[in-house]
Amino acid sequence: MNLKMIAYSLGKILQIEAALLAVPLCVGLIYHEGQTIYLAYLGASCLAFLIGSLLKARKPKDTNIYTKDGLVIVALVWLVYSVIGCLPLIITGEVPQFVDAFFEIISGFTTTGASIIPNVEALSQASLFWRSFTHLIGGMGVILFALAVMPGLGAETIHIMKAEATGPNFGKVSHTIQDTARRLYLIYLSMTAILTLVLLLCGMNLFDAMIHAFSAAGTGGFSNYKNSVGHFNSPLIEVVLGFGVLAFGVNFNVYHYLLLSKFRSRPKSEEVNWYLSIVGIATLLISLNILPQVLAQGGNYWASLRHSFFYTTSIMTTTGFVTVDYTLWPVFSRTMLLAVMCIGGCAGSTAGGLKVSRVAMMTKSAILGIRGSQEPRRALPLRFEYKAVRPEKLRKVFQFLVIYILFFALCMFVVSLDQVTFEEAFGSVAASINCIGPGMGRMGPFGNYAILTPLSKYTLCFAMIAGRLEFYPLLMLLGAPFSKKRAV
Amino acid sequence: MNLKMIAYSLGKILQIEAALLAVPLCVGLIYHEGQTIYLAYLGASCLAFLIGSLLKARKPKDTNIYTKDGLVIVALVWLVYSVIGCLPLIITGEVPQFVDAFFEIISGFTTTGASIIPNVEALSQASLFWRSFTHLIGGMGVILFALAVMPGLGAETIHIMKAEATGPNFGKVSHTIQDTARRLYLIYLSMTAILTLVLLLCGMNLFDAMIHAFSAAGTGGFSNYKNSVGHFNSPLIEVVLGFGVLAFGVNFNVYHYLLLSKFRSRPKSEEVNWYLSIVGIATLLISLNILPQVLAQGGNYWASLRHSFFYTTSIMTTTGFVTVDYTLWPVFSRTMLLAVMCIGGCAGSTAGGLKVSRVAMMTKSAILGIRGSQEPRRALPLRFEYKAVRPEKLRKVFQFLVIYILFFALCMFVVSLDQVTFEEAFGSVAASINCIGPGMGRMGPFGNYAILTPLSKYTLCFAMIAGRLEFYPLLMLLGAPFSKKRAV
Repeated sequence: MNLKMIAYSLGKILQIEAALLAVPLCVGLIYHEGQTIYLAYLGASCLAFLIGSLLKARKPKDTNIYTKDGLVIVALVWLVYSVIGCLPLIITGEVPQFVDAFFEIISGFTTTGASIIPNVEALSQASLFWRSFTHLIGGMGVILFALAVMPGLGAETIHIMKAEATGPNFGKVSHTIQDTARRLYLIYLSMTAILTLVLLLCGMNLFDAMIHAFSAAGTGGFSNYKNSVGHFNSPLIEVVLGFGVLAFGVNFNVYHYLLLSKFRSRPKSEEVNWYLSIVGIATLLISLNILPQVLAQGGNYWASLRHSFFYTTSIMTTTGFVTVDYTLWPVFSRTMLLAVMCIGGCAGSTAGGLKVSRVAMMTKSAILGIRGSQEPRRALPLRFEYKAVRPEKLRKVFQFLVIYILFFALCMFVVSLDQVTFEEAFGSVAASINCIGPGMGRMGPFGNYAILTPLSKYTLCFAMIAGRLEFYPLLMLLGAPFSKKRAV
Repeated sequence: MNLKMIAYSLGKILQIEAALLAVPLCVGLIYHEGQTIYLAYLGASCLAFLIGSLLKARKPKDTNIYTKDGLVIVALVWLVYSVIGCLPLIITGEVPQFVDAFFEIISGFTTTGASIIPNVEALSQASLFWRSFTHLIGGMGVILFALAVMPGLGAETIHIMKAEATGPNFGKVSHTIQDTARRLYLIYLSMTAILTLVLLLCGMNLFDAMIHAFSAAGTGGFSNYKNSVGHFNSPLIEVVLGFGVLAFGVNFNVYHYLLLSKFRSRPKSEEVNWYLSIVGIATLLISLNILPQVLAQGGNYWASLRHSFFYTTSIMTTTGFVTVDYTLWPVFSRTMLLAVMCIGGCAGSTAGGLKVSRVAMMTKSAILGIRGSQEPRRALPLRFEYKAVRPEKLRKVFQFLVIYILFFALCMFVVSLDQVTFEEAFGSVAASINCIGPGMGRMGPFGNYAILTPLSKYTLCFAMIAGRLEFYPLLMLLGAPFSKKRAV
């Protein structure tokens, strides 16, 4: 491992956090929120800058970054960003315990949106903004952002970028890495701006519109209201946000392709077809399942369909916006939501979960396996996205599933030591590892994670970051001290 | 497909069920249980013989059995065996509804041991015997039994045998198929006889000893007492049955090897090492987790360890014997039991579940994947059972996992339409697909499945048979009408 280069890169990327922390400081200044708030965000920003400067003081001679270094840098950046990012909440006294503040901010950066704050409306505007702003930054990736704005990072950074990208595919969007990062961020920020505008037109004020657009963009789910999207009590806003998060759950390569062809040709994407089909089927089934309940409460089929669409998109894209209380829905709908939680959005989107492309590839492979059992001698090749899938690639997808299940079980065991029901344990691990936010039972849409012990909270933090970074970077970081001798 | 040969084979194997049904008839005669009982078992036996004779009336010219035919025969045999096997329960009026009787007997043959009978002690001795006897027959496989006792089945039956065997490995135990079947059954029945003897020595009467030995041998779990093994209130019996089911969860090739070497050399088996390690770790963790509860009830650490060992072996080998009520245990222990439920016993044993060898292979592959992510260019080969695993074999294991998960989710969706909690739905599907028996909540150790709707019951029947036969035969049978045109 190139430790010097790891420290140097970390330093550079930390300086960016210093700049990012200045944004909530400005929000605080605009709203005249008092010295404590200014000091908290200014202090954290200066600290990030200071540590960053120290780390990047000496540029190493060997600037090569290998695969393993890339993985370790990514894991470190996300951890350090969360540790420094949670300091303002502690300094202002809004979230006095470190474990809680860390949980809240890691939940922000990983775009989980799980909260330990019982009453978010009591937070300062600066902190409310910062929480949702971490979603926006974390959504497309902290490092991708760094690459987009930082000059002078060479071709060797491909390994860092790859380590942060989600899903099994990472299409080469453009010639240089920095160019790719910039184009992706341009699309991402434009879409966020459009959503903000639409939400303004729907009657939100600018602050609310920004908060909810940021949370939708990162598929995070933090809101500045206790009742989340339910606060607005507006079917229009629900539908807009439903389609909003749906759009951010799509592979960004699709948008890039649209942009390149100047919207003249429709890009073919098998993954998007699967994604929309699953959303469609789940929406339909849940709407039928909750219909009797909605009718009993005086609603009609359209209300049932709206709730179903809102939650299917909110949960499947791993956002976790909330309107009605789905823990009161029948078991079938809750099971369906837990299932789409685990599937997640498309690869290369801001969503978490297993990713649609992995689920689609594995399902197709299983079907081939069944067909192949009739005639074991004929090899049936797997095709996905209109071309043959190499066996190594398929094996990696399967290995990912196994790592996912093992991680899930491990976190489940630890959380089940807490005072929770089986559904609560299952729901909170699923909501963390897939970066959704609201789970089941007391960790449901109108509950929060404050009741858990610090052990469970740290476990869920671990699950969130492991899930967001798709396990490998964190495993590499944990394994780094032990594997030094073996590595050259 | 060779339809004539499928019918002919089915006929032959059905005639064997006629003979098997004579055994509970004898039990009824011994206990003087009255004409209804005699008529019920005699009638079912005659029916099996009659249908069998009709089907095998004409030996087809083409006696070839291909892979697909083998799969279809296995699925048909298990279904028809269960349909005919449940008739006595209906005729005697002990279980008046077809769906319930079918559930009970399919649960018997698949060695699940899930019951819909609220008070088993009210059953006749003949029916109690028949339930556990189906465990003994189903344990090693209905067809393997047919192969062992039936003369004149040629080499083409290898496809039927393969289709019924569980797990990814099927070592060639002996030269001819019939020889293999006989040797395996010899070991199996000897072990059952030894267990019966030991249980007699522990103070059980002959009937009880046979019932419990049969259920342990097939890792089924039916008991003739409402409180199952708890009825005897004997720590000695608990420990004996714990080790008993543990032994039947081991790959039978290991015993065959022991027999061949005349117990001189210890066979090396990586799967058995994994199996015993998992049992050991789970036993230890559960015993620590339930310790406070056991101490509060006046027990000591040994009582806690005994309960933990009993349930870990009973659940992991997918038997489902019951003593205390584990639904009252902390969530951690219940989660642990659900996890070992899904792992199951060794391949080529009488146990269900994913099988230890599959779990071990996938875990090892995932670890290789993690190690390989450091140096993507170096290919790391997977080794299991002291030799390299071919990529196709590994792919099949992964495909099996995906089919398992998809089946699990599908059954979960259907059962969750019933009036059940999430844990009950999850538990009953896990208990059926892995052939355990007792699930969670009201389907727990002292509950039963009677409260479910017929839809859920049929779904769980489907899950049991799909799980026991490892999906492919049933899928082939369901797909047969549609794939006729494609097949040659």
